[in-house]
Amino acid sequence: MSENKKFVQEITDMEQDFAQWYTDVVKKADLVDYSSVRGSMIIRPYGYAIWENIQRVLDEEIKETGHENVYMPLFIPESLLQKEKDHIEGFAPEVAWVTHGGSEELHERLCVRPTSEVLFCEHYAQIIRSHRDLPKLYNQWSNVVRWEKTTRPFLRSLEFLWQEGHTCHATDEEAHDETRKMLDVYAALCEDILAIPVIKGRKTEKEKFAGAKFTYTIESLMHDGKALQTGTSHHLGTGFAEAFNIQYADKNGELQYVHQTSWGITTRLIGALIMVHGDNRGLVLPPKIAPTQVIIVPIAQHKEGVLEKAEELKDLLKPFARIKVDASDKMPGWKFNEHEMKGVPLRLEVGPKDIEKGQVVLARRDTGEKIVMPMDQLKDIIPALLSEIQQNLFMQAKKHRLAKTNVASSLDEMKEQLNTNPGLIKAMWCGELACEDKIKEDTGATSRCIPFDQESVASTCVCCGKESNQLVYWARAY
Amino acid sequence: MSENKKFVQEITDMEQDFAQWYTDVVKKADLVDYSSVRGSMIIRPYGYAIWENIQRVLDEEIKETGHENVYMPLFIPESLLQKEKDHIEGFAPEVAWVTHGGSEELHERLCVRPTSEVLFCEHYAQIIRSHRDLPKLYNQWSNVVRWEKTTRPFLRSLEFLWQEGHTCHATDEEAHDETRKMLDVYAALCEDILAIPVIKGRKTEKEKFAGAKFTYTIESLMHDGKALQTGTSHHLGTGFAEAFNIQYADKNGELQYVHQTSWGITTRLIGALIMVHGDNRGLVLPPKIAPTQVIIVPIAQHKEGVLEKAEELKDLLKPFARIKVDASDKMPGWKFNEHEMKGVPLRLEVGPKDIEKGQVVLARRDTGEKIVMPMDQLKDIIPALLSEIQQNLFMQAKKHRLAKTNVASSLDEMKEQLNTNPGLIKAMWCGELACEDKIKEDTGATSRCIPFDQESVASTCVCCGKESNQLVYWARAY
Repeated sequence: MSENKKFVQEITDMEQDFAQWYTDVVKKADLVDYSSVRGSMIIRPYGYAIWENIQRVLDEEIKETGHENVYMPLFIPESLLQKEKDHIEGFAPEVAWVTHGGSEELHERLCVRPTSEVLFCEHYAQIIRSHRDLPKLYNQWSNVVRWEKTTRPFLRSLEFLWQEGHTCHATDEEAHDETRKMLDVYAALCEDILAIPVIKGRKTEKEKFAGAKFTYTIESLMHDGKALQTGTSHHLGTGFAEAFNIQYADKNGELQYVHQTSWGITTRLIGALIMVHGDNRGLVLPPKIAPTQVIIVPIAQHKEGVLEKAEELKDLLKPFARIKVDASDKMPGWKFNEHEMKGVPLRLEVGPKDIEKGQVVLARRDTGEKIVMPMDQLKDIIPALLSEIQQNLFMQAKKHRLAKTNVASSLDEMKEQLNTNPGLIKAMWCGELACEDKIKEDTGATSRCIPFDQESVASTCVCCGKESNQLVYWARAY
Repeated sequence: MSENKKFVQEITDMEQDFAQWYTDVVKKADLVDYSSVRGSMIIRPYGYAIWENIQRVLDEEIKETGHENVYMPLFIPESLLQKEKDHIEGFAPEVAWVTHGGSEELHERLCVRPTSEVLFCEHYAQIIRSHRDLPKLYNQWSNVVRWEKTTRPFLRSLEFLWQEGHTCHATDEEAHDETRKMLDVYAALCEDILAIPVIKGRKTEKEKFAGAKFTYTIESLMHDGKALQTGTSHHLGTGFAEAFNIQYADKNGELQYVHQTSWGITTRLIGALIMVHGDNRGLVLPPKIAPTQVIIVPIAQHKEGVLEKAEELKDLLKPFARIKVDASDKMPGWKFNEHEMKGVPLRLEVGPKDIEKGQVVLARRDTGEKIVMPMDQLKDIIPALLSEIQQNLFMQAKKHRLAKTNVASSLDEMKEQLNTNPGLIKAMWCGELACEDKIKEDTGATSRCIPFDQESVASTCVCCGKESNQLVYWARAY
């Protein structure tokens, strides 16, 4: 029994200390471990399997939409990073610098890429000549480094994994369409696969990407009422093209600057999964992204025929679900806890009595519901249940967001709401940076986005009272 | 026509200047481009697609053999790297050092991982307690950095992509079996997928991995008679476990050190593909790894029905091959050149006359052969031809290796052979480092491996003349 003790894992109550709850879950669901590398994380097999599933779905979509994968260098010479002014200003404070190779000091420092715009731009300047070379639709899966002071696994770490798309187009309109298209791809990934509802919109000038013309974003609400930016898509305009001289000859032979975009999602999405669906028993994973969708737990597995039946059911159901048998020598109760902690959507219990009756017990992770089902119907029931769980998680998250979305028409109202029912706040904004800054200072909330779906919840700016017809979502955010 | 000019790409004759031929091919087949980052390469879409195919095949095999993917940090604190003495000695001269984060100087330098043994070891020391935790079978796909002075795309670059397996076992025997098993996985990847014949064997003490008990290797022969190490699998023994204190309680509750392995292959394999199969018209890709297996080139594509038929054939053959239509507005001749340069295994030409006769022309990249085939048989013919090309490339490479493998019984003989017919040399060796060093100094050849398939080609050491029953393969190498 003592061997099994480590599986009784008390985690902090999420309503009492959400931050500690989060840290407990990432550790106890075996998603992440720490190392002596400050601020970096070890992504353990279970965490990495989630990332691989995200990659698989998104990579397919990226290719379907005509993009090609490439790989750019990890290092960026300092002079190259400095070519686009806004960009270097935004990133310089948070890059890691390589100054020595072997025992030699370098003539020029190299930064470890925080993002790869400048590398793509340098390459594009070399390979784009004519309108026939456009569009160029590239993507890269890689690691990036940002020198953060305070770090948390998945949400903010020194190094993280991501994909970054970088494209060049002949016209502003095409670049705009691309920016919007990829935002939709991200939104579909979040809503259809991760069961995370998102709000699509545009970032304010203050919050946009360093060097971009504008930034589109998808924003999600976490269980604790804080918002998380889950993906961004930037229209870069011609700013980088001008700095890097990326020109093409149009049909009349005249040189034109290309119009660019870049867009990315990161391992942060795993943090969103945890904070949107998790509960006090640990992780809850949507079936479409779960590494294991069904865990078979044999009951009284030492009895004749039990393990055999468990394996038989696994083989039978393999074509319909990612399914595993837990045949370890722990007690069933410990196994229940462990797989609940890991958020496995469905548990299938099968013991001697079940075998006698030709049935199994199915337990849903999302609702806790237990149902007895005839074995010969499992091929139909399991896919149906997985799909129901997927939908239910999405609906629950939507309901939660609705309950935590308020409308404010004054700063005081905003403060009050953020204290009593923290979440998203819909409020009108005049567009002035001064108001945006003041709102942040007074309430701790930042502008999340100017949503595409505009509505008029008031007629004046929530801060200065000037007339305004622009709706903005505000929230405290990760 | 001028638009198309860039596709007439003369490359250097491989018999005249193999190094230049190689550089021409990687550039003109659009595998790689250079950037302002010294010694690093941009892997372009076509090159990266080859890497993705290698990854797909190998990752599946790695998982089938029970391994799980994880992700370790990019940075290693200097003190951690120093824990295993042989290891740091081997790697210190070639690591890149991060000394600053943002504007702050770091208390301790971080090296950019040249390999991740120490990170895995630190993690293993935390998560392994009992014999029940063993074996631990982890793998990682990542980038690594080695500060090389002279670099060449794929073969030797500052940064490269690879996978690194790291495992822990209860016994020396299990670790040994793992080392050997993964070498076999690599050998199968090379021979069955990349059509590159390999010699399996053990590295000498001098050539083994820094910190390993011994290193197994697969060695291949390139077209120019130089050898290339295409994959290695290290038995680490308990050296790292002792340095990092990775212990487990055995069934009697006694603490034991784990026995470890590590193994890797890199983007170097793309270099091997080029140098084993390439010819004076460019790249030649084995069908199993080719991003495009069949390229359809429409003839007189402006004529009615030609492009439609090309698309129709593509849709028909899609389930049987990775197939594309080149509908660009270049002349067919330019398209032929371009796809030959890129090593596409099969070209399918279809024009108005072919359509009339219900036939197409198929051209093999490996033999140059052209055959006329009825359209309605393509579903059978194309898979058969692709499989024949795959086999033929492997047989050609084997024949080439045989013709370039010599037996030497003296140093003079060795020198003579390396000058007249450079390639692999089979010769006996006494096992003394002094002889190994002398051979390298006198001939430029290094020991490639002590092959598993031993034979007696002489009875005395090729260098000192002492009695020896150990066969070694020697060659000048990349």
